[in-house]
Amino acid sequence: MADKKANIGVVGMAVMGKNLALNIESRGYTVAIYNRSAAKTEKVMADHGDKNLIPSYDIKDFVNSIEAPRTILLMVKAGVPTDAVINEILPLLDKGDTLIDGGNTNFHDTIARNKELAKSGINFIGMGVSGGELGALEGPSLMPGGQKEAYDRVAPILEKIAAKAKDGKPCVAYIGPDGAGHYVKMVHNGIEYGDEELIDESFNILRNAAGYSVDDLAKIFADWNKGELNSYLIEITADILTRKDDLGADKSKPIVDMILDRGANKGTGKWSSEDALDEGAPQSVITESVYARFVSMLKDERMAAAKVLHGPANKPAYNGSDIVEDMRQALYFGKIMSYAQGFEQMRMASNSHNWNLKYGELAQIWREGCIIRAQFLDEITKAFEKTPDLNNLLMDPFFGDIANKYQDAARQILAFATEYGIPVPSLAGAVSYFDSYRAEILPANLLQAQRDYFGAHTYERVDRPGSFHYPWYKEQ
Amino acid sequence: MADKKANIGVVGMAVMGKNLALNIESRGYTVAIYNRSAAKTEKVMADHGDKNLIPSYDIKDFVNSIEAPRTILLMVKAGVPTDAVINEILPLLDKGDTLIDGGNTNFHDTIARNKELAKSGINFIGMGVSGGELGALEGPSLMPGGQKEAYDRVAPILEKIAAKAKDGKPCVAYIGPDGAGHYVKMVHNGIEYGDEELIDESFNILRNAAGYSVDDLAKIFADWNKGELNSYLIEITADILTRKDDLGADKSKPIVDMILDRGANKGTGKWSSEDALDEGAPQSVITESVYARFVSMLKDERMAAAKVLHGPANKPAYNGSDIVEDMRQALYFGKIMSYAQGFEQMRMASNSHNWNLKYGELAQIWREGCIIRAQFLDEITKAFEKTPDLNNLLMDPFFGDIANKYQDAARQILAFATEYGIPVPSLAGAVSYFDSYRAEILPANLLQAQRDYFGAHTYERVDRPGSFHYPWYKEQ
Repeated sequence: MADKKANIGVVGMAVMGKNLALNIESRGYTVAIYNRSAAKTEKVMADHGDKNLIPSYDIKDFVNSIEAPRTILLMVKAGVPTDAVINEILPLLDKGDTLIDGGNTNFHDTIARNKELAKSGINFIGMGVSGGELGALEGPSLMPGGQKEAYDRVAPILEKIAAKAKDGKPCVAYIGPDGAGHYVKMVHNGIEYGDEELIDESFNILRNAAGYSVDDLAKIFADWNKGELNSYLIEITADILTRKDDLGADKSKPIVDMILDRGANKGTGKWSSEDALDEGAPQSVITESVYARFVSMLKDERMAAAKVLHGPANKPAYNGSDIVEDMRQALYFGKIMSYAQGFEQMRMASNSHNWNLKYGELAQIWREGCIIRAQFLDEITKAFEKTPDLNNLLMDPFFGDIANKYQDAARQILAFATEYGIPVPSLAGAVSYFDSYRAEILPANLLQAQRDYFGAHTYERVDRPGSFHYPWYKEQ
Repeated sequence: MADKKANIGVVGMAVMGKNLALNIESRGYTVAIYNRSAAKTEKVMADHGDKNLIPSYDIKDFVNSIEAPRTILLMVKAGVPTDAVINEILPLLDKGDTLIDGGNTNFHDTIARNKELAKSGINFIGMGVSGGELGALEGPSLMPGGQKEAYDRVAPILEKIAAKAKDGKPCVAYIGPDGAGHYVKMVHNGIEYGDEELIDESFNILRNAAGYSVDDLAKIFADWNKGELNSYLIEITADILTRKDDLGADKSKPIVDMILDRGANKGTGKWSSEDALDEGAPQSVITESVYARFVSMLKDERMAAAKVLHGPANKPAYNGSDIVEDMRQALYFGKIMSYAQGFEQMRMASNSHNWNLKYGELAQIWREGCIIRAQFLDEITKAFEKTPDLNNLLMDPFFGDIANKYQDAARQILAFATEYGIPVPSLAGAVSYFDSYRAEILPANLLQAQRDYFGAHTYERVDRPGSFHYPWYKEQ
């Protein structure tokens, strides 16, 4: 055993690292493993001593146990711990070795590290990994970015461990240079926030304004999952709503009612909104979903506010024919706007960073393994196959037609929620985006007049090119 | 003249620097002036040779022409040019001298510079300046942050040059340590973005869904300016709408119709949203106004989208009694939400950075001189005088009562715009925020269930403290 070299090494034996190592090993590879504290590695060996794993308790031994050129996957905490491992391992590496950072790293850090390590001839791949613990073990969606030649060398392993879509294609592809992989993972997570908020708003409307019970809603979501909304998040929502409290006095209560309504976040949705602001990308659905979590965290303030801020004087009855079907259409409409915004943001970033992102491929590798996996991603792939330089998903006939068709339901649900007093920030962001994006004229003409008035910022004209300043302060 | 020392020096003789220098001089001070290229300084002396200005064409002469301990106001471009000037001037300064950066600087940079310069015993004040060119000359609103003792020394000058509110109080106050001044200016600008967008949305609804002409709207805004919406931005909007095209073939056309609807921005609104994301502050009104500018910039895409994405099938008539009055109430409602969010954001930042911001004072110094000057800022001051640790403006009876009262109009206008197909992102953000903030229960309970389901992120319970994980994958 001591003479046999590992095909790949994994640093970090927390659950994600351990599960990825086991996933790789299960595809016929020998995997070197290392963890800063020996106990985690010892535990893995105790549980999986029969597998082709080569444990090391010293980082030099670890590096030496991997065949050259080496491929080493880092599965450690993003930020300072990642830098610490890189600094420790770098002097032990040889030119042509490849480090893969599979952590939840900000793409700006990945760009900087890729550049810095390239000076020593070390390839650096920043790889988004989605799918959680189970995905890591059984097949995640992988978004690797960095040196193409390094990707090509490691591709056979990644393709084997990745989830497989129904057509058999692995949910991994080369995303682009330096930070492209972690970037795309960040937008994936932002889209995930938007999907969740749109589902949660639908739940809130149907339950609290339309009077459906949690049991009814479990059936409604299960039903939606059979149609065009088919997706992992709708599926688990339906399942969640069937579950009863396992800890409280009354075991017949839905678990959802025992959960405190403070929506936590781990920062990637926020990064995604910050990047939209940097790129000049209107990203209202995702950003409103981030803010919705922020408001939810202010539980004590909300409890106090509920005592003094009351709702609308009259709560209307829904005046459409079928609120459940309208809600379904509104949810799908919102989802389309969210993805249109997310893909537009990626297009802008691809141009800014010269990444040459392949949008159709991105949708393809999100079809399985990851949290936002959904039937309709196939349609996104088709749209970009038809028109690789598509500016906006809404300009594809498939999505444009659905948006046109479902807009009335979306408007009616939004108007109803507004008059009923149910907050629907992401749905509202979706409708406003649709109406802004299809507007030939926006009141930004008045805005430019205001800016020219108080700040002499100048304005452009509709009838000729150039910048102009109006003599606002001259007597008329 | 050569023996007389200046009371203060100003670096940068572009229009803002020149006007501030002239403003200071007009209050009885002698002002040293310097500009990297001599031409600008020469021009100032050619136009204002009779004033108590001491021009220098060498930075050493400039520094030597100022009385000790020196106060030097930098009015140069933010970023690299500011660093260049600081690096050049630093070796010429003595301990106890004070640099004031009056540029549009990101507060993170100000914090870093304040810290760095303190090592050499130099005080560094980051000062937000609002009011544009005219304000700089006649009386701006000033937001200085940095060493308190340095502020105290320069306060007499700042108080003289600042705008005066109706009660005679100068629109300047010590904001707080290091970056607090530039921070508050950034939020001021974000609030300005929100105010503008809410006005522009109102204009769009009344013009394009209610059929009012530009002339009608000039009168409506002038009328609004007489009431509780009284403010600089409403005032100039009314004026703008009376103005006719000065350049086109048809001089009877409203100028606003000749202005291209691409809303530019200089980045401070974006900074303000990025900071809200960093602080965990829900800031939907301002952020949606930033995104509204972004969408407006995509003019070519919008023109193409307008051809394939159509509006609602049926455009409703307004079913309230008075759309103009309802719009006025909706606009005020939106404005209150925007300020509630902005002040909540400042409270969070004040805690994060240990700034001890005085919120009532901030509202006070915005009453004149700056772009968001408005009657209702007096009410904000009163609210914080009554309750200095007020969590949220909506918890003050004055603002809470108006929000409660005007919410029906805001809801009706939002529902109408939604069903008519007019984009109202900031108004929608305002209504959603109100309904979220006053919600005892939000669907973040379902969100936490989803996060615990796919990522084992754990959840909190309503009936006991602690973190819990539900056995989602066990057979029921």
